Amino acid sequence: MEIKKVVAGIDIGGTNTVFGFVEENGNCLFESSIPTLAEKPADQFFERLFKHLLESFQNFAGTHELLGIGMGAPNANYYKGTVENPPNLNWGIVDVKNIVKKYTPLPAALTNDANAAALGEMLFGAGIGLKDFVVITLGTGLGSGIIVNGELVYGHDGFAGEIGHSIVQINGRDCGCGRKGCLETYASATGIRRTAIELLNGSDQKSELRNIPEEQITSKHIGIAAANGDKLALEAFDFTARILGFELANTVAYLSPEAIILFGGLAKAGDLIFVPVKKYMEENLLNIFKNKVRIIPSGLLDKNTAVLGAAALIWNELKKH
Amino acid sequence: MEIKKVVAGIDIGGTNTVFGFVEENGNCLFESSIPTLAEKPADQFFERLFKHLLESFQNFAGTHELLGIGMGAPNANYYKGTVENPPNLNWGIVDVKNIVKKYTPLPAALTNDANAAALGEMLFGAGIGLKDFVVITLGTGLGSGIIVNGELVYGHDGFAGEIGHSIVQINGRDCGCGRKGCLETYASATGIRRTAIELLNGSDQKSELRNIPEEQITSKHIGIAAANGDKLALEAFDFTARILGFELANTVAYLSPEAIILFGGLAKAGDLIFVPVKKYMEENLLNIFKNKVRIIPSGLLDKNTAVLGAAALIWNELKKH
Repeated sequence: MEIKKVVAGIDIGGTNTVFGFVEENGNCLFESSIPTLAEKPADQFFERLFKHLLESFQNFAGTHELLGIGMGAPNANYYKGTVENPPNLNWGIVDVKNIVKKYTPLPAALTNDANAAALGEMLFGAGIGLKDFVVITLGTGLGSGIIVNGELVYGHDGFAGEIGHSIVQINGRDCGCGRKGCLETYASATGIRRTAIELLNGSDQKSELRNIPEEQITSKHIGIAAANGDKLALEAFDFTARILGFELANTVAYLSPEAIILFGGLAKAGDLIFVPVKKYMEENLLNIFKNKVRIIPSGLLDKNTAVLGAAALIWNELKKH
Repeated sequence: MEIKKVVAGIDIGGTNTVFGFVEENGNCLFESSIPTLAEKPADQFFERLFKHLLESFQNFAGTHELLGIGMGAPNANYYKGTVENPPNLNWGIVDVKNIVKKYTPLPAALTNDANAAALGEMLFGAGIGLKDFVVITLGTGLGSGIIVNGELVYGHDGFAGEIGHSIVQINGRDCGCGRKGCLETYASATGIRRTAIELLNGSDQKSELRNIPEEQITSKHIGIAAANGDKLALEAFDFTARILGFELANTVAYLSPEAIILFGGLAKAGDLIFVPVKKYMEENLLNIFKNKVRIIPSGLLDKNTAVLGAAALIWNELKKH
């Protein structure tokens, strides 16, 4: 019997860490997770993780060869192989690539979640066959991964692709980064929530969102209300899309991508977000770019995107060598 | 005697077209120019150009081998090899790469001036040894060329790198592109002129610029006045730099380049523009990028940058194959 090749994809999150084994075609053999226990030291985490991962692989050792380890983590640096002061992990600066060497001699690579997502789309999702595209993840914040000439843009220091922190409004909303007016303060699950609450407090307009205590309103509630035709919720989507579409027109001026892939919780609202984002982007595009750039959903929507992204990172490295 | 290798670099402008022969180390053997005669058909232009160019090369034919033809032109498309409706040439859409085949079987490549400038810096100028940088040309407009992973970013259609048309001010100044608030309406020779005239008309502040009829004021006058300590002229530089520095902070969020190279007429104002641009960029940068990105002048300042850029384009192509 032929021995099949797989890699491990690991997505390190603030609460749970998910991992799985992924073949070159994106087929995911196995998935499991462990609690991250973010308040404990990183060393203990990696010991638990690799014990679990290598034991799990024993079930496939007769039929599969493990070729490498890909990891997605917050504040991860591809070049240095480090995770640096991630917001949800009590780790400080951790030399992940070095720690991994204690547990396996296999090649390992590390990047942040949005970059991993972009590589996941390129190898297994909506980016197959595309050489120039941008992935925007609309989660708590706005992450982005940029592909140019079929390669991820890391920049000289590994930190490129922070489109969520391009400033779209001088003296705009306070951002967690300490500055004001960053795109992610408007275009994200948190951003649309802020918008809806501003709209609720700024008028007496009827809205089913008024039935929910303000502090409990989530982007999901806003999506459900908008799908029900709630005018205020629709206005919140329109405002979010106007700002995102505006900045995506600038993204196109920089990079002229073939497609922009929207991903993450807010993208699940479908037409509610895709239609107005496309409209506002087109309105703001330079003539030579009009009607050329597709805005499309992730091609990994119903799979474990994070594990596939991390696996894509290391598959991509293995192909280079 | 060893036969040396050279390429031809051609810069097609609205008034004149300059060409020269450039060795792999950037040494320019020869330079000449012909009037473009922009109102006449493109075919006639290329006939004159290649007659002149190939005759000129006869002086070097005993000692040098001509390997290829690189061209920089307004509205040039690298992928298609076309020039499309250039603003200063009465050409319509011209299939340049095909026309060139009539005159020489040598490999030829074409891109716009700003992209050629970026390749010129990479091979022969301030970008030597850098893999991730951005070139901004501050001329009549604002052109840009982006280098990522040691390659020029063309985007999927050849039109990437239009940073001059990122919108920095919603409902801002009218731009020649038909939209409002594009970066180049503020940060360019034309932009600083508009700013100075707004300042002159908006106050009674003393300024040596008041001695010049308004329609004759150029960015050069503003530079001279600023160098003399003229407060209004200094204010015009400060305003220009504030907007450029702001957008460059966004550029860094996208691309995390090691350096940004400023080029063109306005960049010749030196510290008057470099110091405040750096200051405003740093003020707007996300923390992880602070004090990392250099803003530097062109390394080709006193040479024929346009010919070197066009030559770099084809040298770069020849190295790929």
